[in-house]
Amino acid sequence: MKMQYTVADYLLDRLAECGVGHLFGVPGDYNLQFLDHVIASENLRWVGCANELNAAYAADGYARCRGMGALLTTFGVGELSAINGIAGSFAEYVPVLHIVGAPCLSVQQRGDCVHHTLGDGNFDHFRRMSEPVCCASASLTASNACREIDRVLSRMRQCRRPGYLVLPADVAVLPAIRVAQVFTAPAEAPAPQARLAEFQACARERIAHSQHMALLGDVLALRFGLQHTLRQWVMEYPLPHATLMMGKGLFDESRPGFVGTYSGAASPEPVRAAIEEADLVLCIGTLFTDTLTAGFTQQLLPEQTIDVQPQGTRIGQQWFSGISMAESVDILLRLCQQHHQHTPFVARAERAEAQALSGDSGGALDQTRFWQVVQHALLPGDIILVDQGTSAFGAANLRLPAGASFIVQPLWGSIGYSLAAAFGAQTAEPGRRVVLIVGDGAAQLTIQEMGSMLRDGQKPLILLLNNGGYTVERAIHGPHQPYNDIAAWNWTAIPHALQSAAQARCWRVEQTAQLEEVLHQLAAPQVLSLVEVILPPMDIPVLLSRVTRSLAACNGSEEG
Amino acid sequence: MKMQYTVADYLLDRLAECGVGHLFGVPGDYNLQFLDHVIASENLRWVGCANELNAAYAADGYARCRGMGALLTTFGVGELSAINGIAGSFAEYVPVLHIVGAPCLSVQQRGDCVHHTLGDGNFDHFRRMSEPVCCASASLTASNACREIDRVLSRMRQCRRPGYLVLPADVAVLPAIRVAQVFTAPAEAPAPQARLAEFQACARERIAHSQHMALLGDVLALRFGLQHTLRQWVMEYPLPHATLMMGKGLFDESRPGFVGTYSGAASPEPVRAAIEEADLVLCIGTLFTDTLTAGFTQQLLPEQTIDVQPQGTRIGQQWFSGISMAESVDILLRLCQQHHQHTPFVARAERAEAQALSGDSGGALDQTRFWQVVQHALLPGDIILVDQGTSAFGAANLRLPAGASFIVQPLWGSIGYSLAAAFGAQTAEPGRRVVLIVGDGAAQLTIQEMGSMLRDGQKPLILLLNNGGYTVERAIHGPHQPYNDIAAWNWTAIPHALQSAAQARCWRVEQTAQLEEVLHQLAAPQVLSLVEVILPPMDIPVLLSRVTRSLAACNGSEEG
Repeated sequence: MKMQYTVADYLLDRLAECGVGHLFGVPGDYNLQFLDHVIASENLRWVGCANELNAAYAADGYARCRGMGALLTTFGVGELSAINGIAGSFAEYVPVLHIVGAPCLSVQQRGDCVHHTLGDGNFDHFRRMSEPVCCASASLTASNACREIDRVLSRMRQCRRPGYLVLPADVAVLPAIRVAQVFTAPAEAPAPQARLAEFQACARERIAHSQHMALLGDVLALRFGLQHTLRQWVMEYPLPHATLMMGKGLFDESRPGFVGTYSGAASPEPVRAAIEEADLVLCIGTLFTDTLTAGFTQQLLPEQTIDVQPQGTRIGQQWFSGISMAESVDILLRLCQQHHQHTPFVARAERAEAQALSGDSGGALDQTRFWQVVQHALLPGDIILVDQGTSAFGAANLRLPAGASFIVQPLWGSIGYSLAAAFGAQTAEPGRRVVLIVGDGAAQLTIQEMGSMLRDGQKPLILLLNNGGYTVERAIHGPHQPYNDIAAWNWTAIPHALQSAAQARCWRVEQTAQLEEVLHQLAAPQVLSLVEVILPPMDIPVLLSRVTRSLAACNGSEEG
Repeated sequence: MKMQYTVADYLLDRLAECGVGHLFGVPGDYNLQFLDHVIASENLRWVGCANELNAAYAADGYARCRGMGALLTTFGVGELSAINGIAGSFAEYVPVLHIVGAPCLSVQQRGDCVHHTLGDGNFDHFRRMSEPVCCASASLTASNACREIDRVLSRMRQCRRPGYLVLPADVAVLPAIRVAQVFTAPAEAPAPQARLAEFQACARERIAHSQHMALLGDVLALRFGLQHTLRQWVMEYPLPHATLMMGKGLFDESRPGFVGTYSGAASPEPVRAAIEEADLVLCIGTLFTDTLTAGFTQQLLPEQTIDVQPQGTRIGQQWFSGISMAESVDILLRLCQQHHQHTPFVARAERAEAQALSGDSGGALDQTRFWQVVQHALLPGDIILVDQGTSAFGAANLRLPAGASFIVQPLWGSIGYSLAAAFGAQTAEPGRRVVLIVGDGAAQLTIQEMGSMLRDGQKPLILLLNNGGYTVERAIHGPHQPYNDIAAWNWTAIPHALQSAAQARCWRVEQTAQLEEVLHQLAAPQVLSLVEVILPPMDIPVLLSRVTRSLAACNGSEEG
């Protein structure tokens, strides 16, 4: 018998319209009715995860590939387990819809002391706890369900941040009316013409006086859909351009004009010079955080920059609010075209060269040799995920091949994120090679999601950096303190324990030549491939040592 | 060089006074300075966990054994990962102090865009998110630190619920003054004499008219320290007594007068009769939740009960507020003594017999045979932890041996809890045998903490019920739906993967006789011992089938 069209179906259709093809989560007895409709859906596939935090990370990784993600949990226990993942999505502008299966409205109205509550008859605690990490939330009822679903999704599309829906078990199965697509309109209303004209005049004046312009694109340009525009821009007008680590993948890093990853005073010198010595830096969607700038060491004066942000654009000291990033970038691009017609652009920036393979590849691996080998093993189209430890800081100065994506979480910085996010990214992009680089300490937090990768036949290449603990913390404080040690695991035995059939390959490498040889075989892995890479516990990437000195100072530590 | 006495040391000394000997958690760069003092402490030992949710569960399991527990996380990412565990502690009255290492006060005051924040310069989001699940919280500063530490701990002792402290990295290392013990006074002020007299008169009148009294003790009697008093009571006056599942372990279940576990209409008949057919039931610290009562089927009229709760006591329809549970119980105990001198007690209750071993132990295991074997393998002094799935419902009608403890989380009901809580319980009680009974679905959520058990040389007996997925959910809804399947793991390979040395023993059993034989060897395990028990996916304990029918009805499901 065909099921009746319900609120559940309406929600699933709306998600599909937003480009969401998979729903991550964990079943619980308040969301099972909804799940029946997910299983029956032709548009969305259910992806069960081992726990809710991992599911949130997976939905986030998926959303970074597909533009939006969705997560299903159960009331109280499930949603609170996931809330750290949602907070990361909020901090880093990743739209994930968090759907929470809840007790029936009648149970809520009576205030019954049911499981997964605090026992006080109040069913609104957890929605309120989620408020600071969502751009919109709603408790669905018979009378508001479809309207509120549309409102929350619209707001998410506009803000690029998570939304939250409480879906009581009985509301999910109420009849609903299938309506035509509503999300064809742009997410935002255009700015008034007068405002745009004022902005344009000011920007023209500023650009006209520039001799040496540079473009610093970053994460919010990626999130607000400007990647294509910016790539076109630097293709037509190859002005020197860079990203911060969080925005890596915005540009095609294999093309001329891309100078490298900007990290304030910790940048490679050619990158620092190309950006800081420009007389005008167009900052498109930049987020300057402590770890990305070696403690706010960026030398960029307000009068030297045009700063394009989601809430408006600043030229020198003047803010133009209410202009979208897309509108600002369109105007700036046109002005640059005109300007360049008068002042032909000469690329003066030196390029930070990708790390060369050292001639000596016979030695034991260390951070320097490891990243050299990785640089040469990356392939066009790879999705590279790095955890927020030595992995991220080492990877910051990789030069990505054409068509590669880069996923990292440096503002929220929740360790373990990358492993579960890799599961989500591979679900979103089954045809691309996923390369996950994660330390041993981080991988322990979320290891069970490797079981989901294996269940789904995913074939990521996992480089597990075993340096005997939390090396990123050792670098900041307490290098020899026992709290930076972790339980020693038998890493190459893990994939075979997390599945019933043996469908993985594992290696343990200590020598540079060994790693080169193994990665050479893994251009197109046929099964999940885990390479345990043994590195010295106190060996850290150069960038990390610069960053941690500033962090230790911020934390009032005597070391550093 | 001896370190100066600091706010960190003051906090650790206060925790030690409260009986806390271990601090669970995960290091992060905002709590490393504090951790130096933990490592240097003579009173508290640091117990690193694989992730923060597991650490919160471990601290909760520890607190259920020791009376209080403590958890250390880092700002934002760490604390939010743990918040579901803290919410469980709040719901089930377990005092766990959650200490959150935070950025320096100067960083907070400037509103810097530092890692582990939402990037908006607001450092108070996460404290506010924790408010609904803590009885007291404080943001420590130079001027309030010691005073606020005392206030939060005092409130926790009074409410038996979690507290929350934000400890900025620089505040932790400020000098403090070591003062004498402050926690020698009782947690609560006594009720006014007149109030107590009024209560006593009313209770005497009620008790005088009772012919068949019964005592229903429960979880809050355990939490508010009344176990010893109640055990004395039923030893001297063996009136029929029972607990709900959440309060199991309150009484010595091997003694006469203990009738079994009360579950409303789903109780074994002798238990139901002993409680519901009494003309006066003294309910001491009972929590009637949906899953504990097969959907609120308890038949206990207000006029039939005296209800002793933390916030006051009800006699019939009359509430006496502001009287502590200890005060009420003291008065009721004295009145019963007097009453029984006039009306000698005759135990009329039939006892629900512990499940006998079926003569046929040659067959394949099912739920019935499994629990029979477990019943006979339990030993005095065991700490038994059961996860909130088939494990808890099967274990509800176990008869505990003398001196055994029972840990379960049926109100909050967060699956996976028991595995990490077992790590905490074994840390609290290294000399007792820990018996963990957990399903495969649940164990996947928190599996990495088995690595911590192995690292610390713990020797729990783990019964891993492999029934191919979320059987408790199958029982409620969607028995054959794919969302109740999980990734199939190679369970007996797990312990060897989660350690570098081989210090565990594993078995996979399908036959009743096999299980008997294995458990016979494990009266005193010498290493961590994992027994994978194969059970049919759709075989569920009798109690669970009764409970799930009512839950399915509450969720508006057509099945049930």
